[in-house]
Amino acid sequence: MSSTYGENLKLSIFGQSHGPAIGMVLDGIPAGLPVDTEKLQQFLNRRAPGQNDWSTPRREEDRPEFLGGILDGFTCGAPIAAVIHNKNTRSGDYANLKDCPRPGHADYTAQIKYGGFQDAAGGGHFSGRLTAPLCIAGGLCKQWLEEMGIRIGAHITEIGLAHAKSFHYVVPELGNIRSDFPTLTEEDAVEMRNVISKARAESESVGGRIECAITGVPAGIGEPMFGGVESRIAQIVYGIPAVKAVGFGWSESFAIVPGSESNDCYTIEEGKIRTLTNHCGGILGGITNGMPIIFDVAFKPTPSISQPQQTVNLKTGEITTIEIKGRHDPCIVPRAVPVVEAAAAIAIYDLILGNTQTSRRK
Amino acid sequence: MSSTYGENLKLSIFGQSHGPAIGMVLDGIPAGLPVDTEKLQQFLNRRAPGQNDWSTPRREEDRPEFLGGILDGFTCGAPIAAVIHNKNTRSGDYANLKDCPRPGHADYTAQIKYGGFQDAAGGGHFSGRLTAPLCIAGGLCKQWLEEMGIRIGAHITEIGLAHAKSFHYVVPELGNIRSDFPTLTEEDAVEMRNVISKARAESESVGGRIECAITGVPAGIGEPMFGGVESRIAQIVYGIPAVKAVGFGWSESFAIVPGSESNDCYTIEEGKIRTLTNHCGGILGGITNGMPIIFDVAFKPTPSISQPQQTVNLKTGEITTIEIKGRHDPCIVPRAVPVVEAAAAIAIYDLILGNTQTSRRK
Amino acid sequence: MSSTYGENLKLSIFGQSHGPAIGMVLDGIPAGLPVDTEKLQQFLNRRAPGQNDWSTPRREEDRPEFLGGILDGFTCGAPIAAVIHNKNTRSGDYANLKDCPRPGHADYTAQIKYGGFQDAAGGGHFSGRLTAPLCIAGGLCKQWLEEMGIRIGAHITEIGLAHAKSFHYVVPELGNIRSDFPTLTEEDAVEMRNVISKARAESESVGGRIECAITGVPAGIGEPMFGGVESRIAQIVYGIPAVKAVGFGWSESFAIVPGSESNDCYTIEEGKIRTLTNHCGGILGGITNGMPIIFDVAFKPTPSISQPQQTVNLKTGEITTIEIKGRHDPCIVPRAVPVVEAAAAIAIYDLILGNTQTSRRK
Amino acid sequence: MSSTYGENLKLSIFGQSHGPAIGMVLDGIPAGLPVDTEKLQQFLNRRAPGQNDWSTPRREEDRPEFLGGILDGFTCGAPIAAVIHNKNTRSGDYANLKDCPRPGHADYTAQIKYGGFQDAAGGGHFSGRLTAPLCIAGGLCKQWLEEMGIRIGAHITEIGLAHAKSFHYVVPELGNIRSDFPTLTEEDAVEMRNVISKARAESESVGGRIECAITGVPAGIGEPMFGGVESRIAQIVYGIPAVKAVGFGWSESFAIVPGSESNDCYTIEEGKIRTLTNHCGGILGGITNGMPIIFDVAFKPTPSISQPQQTVNLKTGEITTIEIKGRHDPCIVPRAVPVVEAAAAIAIYDLILGNTQTSRRK
Repeated sequence: MSSTYGENLKLSIFGQSHGPAIGMVLDGIPAGLPVDTEKLQQFLNRRAPGQNDWSTPRREEDRPEFLGGILDGFTCGAPIAAVIHNKNTRSGDYANLKDCPRPGHADYTAQIKYGGFQDAAGGGHFSGRLTAPLCIAGGLCKQWLEEMGIRIGAHITEIGLAHAKSFHYVVPELGNIRSDFPTLTEEDAVEMRNVISKARAESESVGGRIECAITGVPAGIGEPMFGGVESRIAQIVYGIPAVKAVGFGWSESFAIVPGSESNDCYTIEEGKIRTLTNHCGGILGGITNGMPIIFDVAFKPTPSISQPQQTVNLKTGEITTIEIKGRHDPCIVPRAVPVVEAAAAIAIYDLILGNTQTSRRK
Repeated sequence: MSSTYGENLKLSIFGQSHGPAIGMVLDGIPAGLPVDTEKLQQFLNRRAPGQNDWSTPRREEDRPEFLGGILDGFTCGAPIAAVIHNKNTRSGDYANLKDCPRPGHADYTAQIKYGGFQDAAGGGHFSGRLTAPLCIAGGLCKQWLEEMGIRIGAHITEIGLAHAKSFHYVVPELGNIRSDFPTLTEEDAVEMRNVISKARAESESVGGRIECAITGVPAGIGEPMFGGVESRIAQIVYGIPAVKAVGFGWSESFAIVPGSESNDCYTIEEGKIRTLTNHCGGILGGITNGMPIIFDVAFKPTPSISQPQQTVNLKTGEITTIEIKGRHDPCIVPRAVPVVEAAAAIAIYDLILGNTQTSRRK
Repeated sequence: MSSTYGENLKLSIFGQSHGPAIGMVLDGIPAGLPVDTEKLQQFLNRRAPGQNDWSTPRREEDRPEFLGGILDGFTCGAPIAAVIHNKNTRSGDYANLKDCPRPGHADYTAQIKYGGFQDAAGGGHFSGRLTAPLCIAGGLCKQWLEEMGIRIGAHITEIGLAHAKSFHYVVPELGNIRSDFPTLTEEDAVEMRNVISKARAESESVGGRIECAITGVPAGIGEPMFGGVESRIAQIVYGIPAVKAVGFGWSESFAIVPGSESNDCYTIEEGKIRTLTNHCGGILGGITNGMPIIFDVAFKPTPSISQPQQTVNLKTGEITTIEIKGRHDPCIVPRAVPVVEAAAAIAIYDLILGNTQTSRRK
Repeated sequence: MSSTYGENLKLSIFGQSHGPAIGMVLDGIPAGLPVDTEKLQQFLNRRAPGQNDWSTPRREEDRPEFLGGILDGFTCGAPIAAVIHNKNTRSGDYANLKDCPRPGHADYTAQIKYGGFQDAAGGGHFSGRLTAPLCIAGGLCKQWLEEMGIRIGAHITEIGLAHAKSFHYVVPELGNIRSDFPTLTEEDAVEMRNVISKARAESESVGGRIECAITGVPAGIGEPMFGGVESRIAQIVYGIPAVKAVGFGWSESFAIVPGSESNDCYTIEEGKIRTLTNHCGGILGGITNGMPIIFDVAFKPTPSISQPQQTVNLKTGEITTIEIKGRHDPCIVPRAVPVVEAAAAIAIYDLILGNTQTSRRK
């Protein structure tokens, strides 16, 4: 249902890129959970623009203001509400975006769906800026999951033709994710930055792929069929702008490997059932098996490029050319890394909230 | 929520592989829609086993019995309910599956989640057999979409190392999908059958990838963020057993191509806005742009293989070896083709039901 | 959403009065819960017709057939599905009901909503017969609640001008509900039977009021605002045909009493917080306070009466007179008593499933 | 689900009485609907305190700030978000409310549910203040319904022992509702004010009953069973603090009248099907019949009274006495009138959004 997510928690995200504010309401969260706003801010800063040369110029920090649900550093049981006031509010004429839709953006589909009433400025509700409130909700869920021993980390595995080292699926090296650029090795970081710099220099943009690992989730989480972990994660991750593919474990490579290699055989270690490999990414039948959850997400390149592109003037019906001005991220993938973590955290926390205790057959 | 799907329609699927029956309830469907049960049966037959040498031996036809919701060939507004009685009901001892989980199956996760109370026979509620009621619901939605000029067709693009021709994204050749084996060309069909036959001969299994096209969907369908077409399709498609990756348009390839090549430029043809290419698979910002919707789904190989595999006896805690007897599909991908179509039909019909009319700015 | 109920469990009810079968799917129930089918049958028999002279002639027993979700006497985690095959299937011409709607029935509203495609026979999906599957689901939930020490009992407090003794709100006399006719005293039973017999003799019908008590629910169940116990119970109870009013505790009498009399003061008994009175019916702010939940439900009289009534022939547009033939319950209230219990059981079990554990401030 | 409501629209309400702000997000609203903020403010002012001698002293106007979803006076398709900043924020020590729960308030149930982490100040999320954001959402829906010719009006029929004239069910006199005090006649207004003044003078409080009419709703709105108009209205109305009974049409009086008097016979007037009476309150089988929807709501007296009341000190476990200081509304019913209208507007607008067009049998 639109900008709402969740079966047990209910997340509602609102705001437009150049409207007065963006924000979120997160309902259904138990009382008594600690909230570390400083840690949350550090998490939010990871998706902030302008941190490096490979990103757009720095704006001021996005700092959420909590309007409800948190009292004296703990959740109080009421819905958690937070807003970030936009400093860069509407100015200038965005009517042009309604008339001449930018290729690859939601300008045209919004125009058709909302009949010209949509807030076109900066992409409106379709802007990547809406991932900030997603990160507020996800950053909180991440903290609560950490209290349970569940850790989430994502990094980049592809940007254009640059490929980086993947996680070890059985023991994901969450601690190795670099803070300056989210890859596992410095070599990969350097190479990817070069690809992005080159794209910028060429007025081009590039997409990429992010891999995310979630460790510490107990076995038995998730529901059969449409409530499986894969369904729940995919639904929310596809809510992130520019996501075009989501896969689990070996992902699309499962299509080409034989069953004898792709099955994960069981073993027992220190009294615990584990699998020798983890090709399935920790999920069988939609339900966790206690191994790390591994999934990957492909992003399309930023559609905003400063090269001339063909479009149609919807008012006159004439074919025309558009040139998108201003500075744009040539690659939003690095900033999307915490967003993927946030989405994963929300999905997993929602599933855990809904996990019903069952008795155990004697 | 578990075995339930839908925002506007509500689909509820029930049954276990070897229980008395499997079935579905489909609520929220308008009255007055025609139902062609013969056409539905033909659709269901496409997923039936044993049609060819590359599949399991033929069982009797799965023929749904409608218990409600249909009167004199039309939907009557009441929930549509249908069951398929299982002829192959529980017999023999399946306790072994609870003790020694088969690698790649949901045996272990079900054991943990349901504490030993699950119906383990034939995979129980996790069985691929549950895709039959999904196809009842999807087959009906497909008929209703056809009445609106919306067509859905899927075919196989990968099985193991065999790659087949993809759809043309702008004009998908739905009419070219072969009825004997779902590829666009005979050469591809022959090659893929060979791969499957070889797998069978080697007591091996193979996965594959299915590509699905939906044509005729008007622009403006879908909701922003978590209610986008991609989110809705991915959620239901991940409800199909063995699905491990779902992508749209160029899918994971978006990670490697530059923005100037991946954006779809607009044009106007006979007064209609279209895109010159359709890399985005007909969806921008989660909303349809009027071009064909294209998505692909990767399936892992059938986990049931007759080679010995390591597992753990959950009762004794000892590592042991399991050999899965009986005949199994070495590749479930051909039979999964109508299932993917069914899932797509349900998702799209649900979105269309929820599509609110908006006024148009003058 | 139509014939679907539940936040944590998902109940889907289907079927039409004279269709092939009626039934229900109950999804989201934990595995390992015992199911006593004989006890369930006894519960279902309480709503069966024809048990006494004050009811319609006896038909054969409604005996549910379970199609899934139960194995060896326990829930198995898969959705629970059950059907009751209709023995009294469509025969004769019900077109008349579409043309000349019966006053007080859903004939006219169904005709408008479903455009003539509805199953009009016996009221179709609007028939009181659909309360049988509600009682299957509710009877199961009632068993599971009993395992937790939660008991539910309902009885009749009004039928026409006959008023019966109410529950003691602090200690509801569940054990005193009579099995032959659901009142607390024999005198009340005799008087109410007389009212019903008199109505029958006069080709008349009567409504009534049912009071329901739920004991043993721990404090802290329910959610604020729209997820409160009152909201949840009212929503499902209004799904029972002929219900026109639902109130809690003192119900509509709260309008006339002063605050000093209606507030329930706290006390402590054997270390437990209790209230001296229970006018609020066990619910404050939508959340249980540990006292018995008390609510009442008013039913309108059976609309089927054999007196001539004015209606309109929808085809010809002429005002005409309808006489409803056949034997009808002059009062459905006695048979509705277990239905109210069933609805309450489903609502409470759903709320308990969704009850999140909170930590307790030290 | 907690503070969230709606099947087709999604309303999420947040905030605590003395927190930084209260507000709401309303998602799923079509684009292009006009928003008259001045008219909305007038509607909100109707629930504002301190307008008269029979209410609490006047505070400043609650004026919502819109953060998203509205552009240039029209909905833009994005979620509508609005906040009201609290001027009367937390101060002083409310710990006492956690220790010694006030009878009739949610203090105790919140303490149990939220384990001491709840925001107890002024009732926190359970405060009647949360009806302000409900009125923002409802005031907007009311405007949009008016555009469709649907009008909603409520008035008071009972306060303590004072009874006022009810609506004529067939032709509700919406235009006669008095603006100074919501009754249909001046005599009733005078009498009720006297009852309230007397209660205040006696440190007492009183409840009351509100009757609401909705005219102009076309026939065929609503879904069968749990999605019926009665279920949907009751669910949201029970989300208003202090509501303890909800009934439709003749409401609980249906229990005592015979069927021959309670059925509404059909007639035809100017080519339109109507009923001669409207005892059912415009709803049959959960679906509208085109007649006015009539429902009534009973409120319990304000629990805050300045008389000493017995409670328990939860910390010490000792029985004690509480005296609630400060000025409190001796009767919140007048201020609740627009809240009931708001709830009705949201429920009806939600149902209309979800109303699927059906073809009509020829």
